[in-house]
Amino acid sequence: MKVRDLPTPSLVVDVDALDANIATMAAARPGRTLRPHVKAFKSTELARRVAELGGHQAFCCATLREMEGMADAGLGDDLLLANETLDAPRLRHLVDRGDARVTVAVDSPETVEVAAHAGAEVLVDVDVGLPRCGCRPEDAGRLAELARTRGLNVRGVMGYEGHVVGDPDRGRRAEKVAESMALLRRAHDDVGGDVTSAGGTGTYDLHDWAGEVQAGSYLLMDTHYAALGLPFRQALRLEVTVISTSPERGWGVVDCGLKSLGMDHGNPTISGWNVFFCSDEHTTFLADATGDSEGRALPAVGARLGVLPAHVDPTVAYHDRLHLVRGDEVIDVWPVDLRGW
Amino acid sequence: MKVRDLPTPSLVVDVDALDANIATMAAARPGRTLRPHVKAFKSTELARRVAELGGHQAFCCATLREMEGMADAGLGDDLLLANETLDAPRLRHLVDRGDARVTVAVDSPETVEVAAHAGAEVLVDVDVGLPRCGCRPEDAGRLAELARTRGLNVRGVMGYEGHVVGDPDRGRRAEKVAESMALLRRAHDDVGGDVTSAGGTGTYDLHDWAGEVQAGSYLLMDTHYAALGLPFRQALRLEVTVISTSPERGWGVVDCGLKSLGMDHGNPTISGWNVFFCSDEHTTFLADATGDSEGRALPAVGARLGVLPAHVDPTVAYHDRLHLVRGDEVIDVWPVDLRGW
Repeated sequence: MKVRDLPTPSLVVDVDALDANIATMAAARPGRTLRPHVKAFKSTELARRVAELGGHQAFCCATLREMEGMADAGLGDDLLLANETLDAPRLRHLVDRGDARVTVAVDSPETVEVAAHAGAEVLVDVDVGLPRCGCRPEDAGRLAELARTRGLNVRGVMGYEGHVVGDPDRGRRAEKVAESMALLRRAHDDVGGDVTSAGGTGTYDLHDWAGEVQAGSYLLMDTHYAALGLPFRQALRLEVTVISTSPERGWGVVDCGLKSLGMDHGNPTISGWNVFFCSDEHTTFLADATGDSEGRALPAVGARLGVLPAHVDPTVAYHDRLHLVRGDEVIDVWPVDLRGW
Repeated sequence: MKVRDLPTPSLVVDVDALDANIATMAAARPGRTLRPHVKAFKSTELARRVAELGGHQAFCCATLREMEGMADAGLGDDLLLANETLDAPRLRHLVDRGDARVTVAVDSPETVEVAAHAGAEVLVDVDVGLPRCGCRPEDAGRLAELARTRGLNVRGVMGYEGHVVGDPDRGRRAEKVAESMALLRRAHDDVGGDVTSAGGTGTYDLHDWAGEVQAGSYLLMDTHYAALGLPFRQALRLEVTVISTSPERGWGVVDCGLKSLGMDHGNPTISGWNVFFCSDEHTTFLADATGDSEGRALPAVGARLGVLPAHVDPTVAYHDRLHLVRGDEVIDVWPVDLRGW
């Protein structure tokens, strides 16, 4: 099948760009020093390719659904739920299946109790500057002690410097990572354990202390991360059709919008055109003088274009398939089988 | 099943609020004077309830998938694809099934050709001020003539004043609707036909000329439309769990985020708390002094809260089920079966 024969909108993955991203990251952070985060792509087929080509055996998840799906796919060697859960029966069921090593983040006595009920291993989740989950560094040791009292294996600590990963200034990113890791190191001194887990795509090469980095966006990429000048290629695009044009008024419309693109990082990008706005199933682009589309004729109604998402994770979560392409050939289709909760 | 036993995040519909919204709208725009827009809820079960309780027989869709699903569900009396499509084989297949009356919007010679290939009926889509699809009013007559030359039944015109529906000032909304409808009326003079289709939830009671209004958000509602003071109740919420709190730092975290909420209209609302920001699977809320949460103790880890989406359409599109509830009982589950494309 050719790419031009796909219905639109369809998510398309350039397999050579994906493989290049896997190789680039594996060279920088081989094997266990990277824990790829499946939340960014939600596909066990893609996870399998990362395991095979990148040589990474441990994965990171954001939901129980992702944990269960990875275990179903035989990718359960070492799964970390890098998030807090209060769903004790479901976590216990996952542990009881026995086909995955299950570790969960804990940051409170309540989440320790859930892990104890389930018999999961734990990492103490530490707030290193992002106002979200994670206990205060000074509380981490007490929480680890509580967990051990409850019979749990405390594997170590995690701390996600999510307030840093998107900073466009590399020097400042490095400085803030060091500040965050000083907090995590302090917590680790009190907690102990082999695992020190941190980071993301924007800081993957700025960690000299953390034992493993949690990165996922590097595989498919988006325009937000592309702005950081990282060595990863844009592997994901939305294949769309031009459904309307108005040369007199200077705009065209393609058939993707708020329901096929995560919008929290702003508008998507259409190379050569100025995106004006998105509605549910439409994106209007301009042929005006404010960008590089100046003076160009609008594409024909029926033409195909590629749209680059601003934020990969919530974009993929809208779709049920990834179409793997090489040039203009569709060579495989991978289900986005880790959607939902 | 009780609401508190649902896994989280789960989309929950207050069935009494939904039924009240159906009744309020049906009183204002009965039967054929409303063409409910399924894009806002993507569920054939919900559409069936609107047909049965509201007495509306004609529906509006934004995608071919929605058209096909409505026909599959036996709700194909009069389906309008209020959007342009270039997928001639798929449209033809839908028409050839023979179980739905299929009308499509056209705004170009190319889309007329697609309709002709498929044997669909058409409405001429007219730009009435929203820079998106729709031909110029002065081109509508020529397009209708072309369609008739190609043997098509031209049922009339449609024009969506999407640039107006969210204006918080009712007087200004009314004024702009009148301006838009003057443009549509001019087009209709040239096009002819019985159907004049326009509007949305924000302007449903401001149309004295258009024969039918295309509204969908009124059924479930969101905080964006709620700000207009319309007589529709908030029927949709996201049931979530508090997964982390930090009384010392003054915030809590619930387990919904960018992958369970449409974000183009901004942050969701948690009654009594100040939403700070969303990430993929988290929403952080503050107990600070800037809102009505001042001085309150944070909820306990494990507590349930309700989150109100800012934009209903792209929120529902992330979920595969709507849980119908009355009080604290889950009385039914409806699949969101019109997702995808």
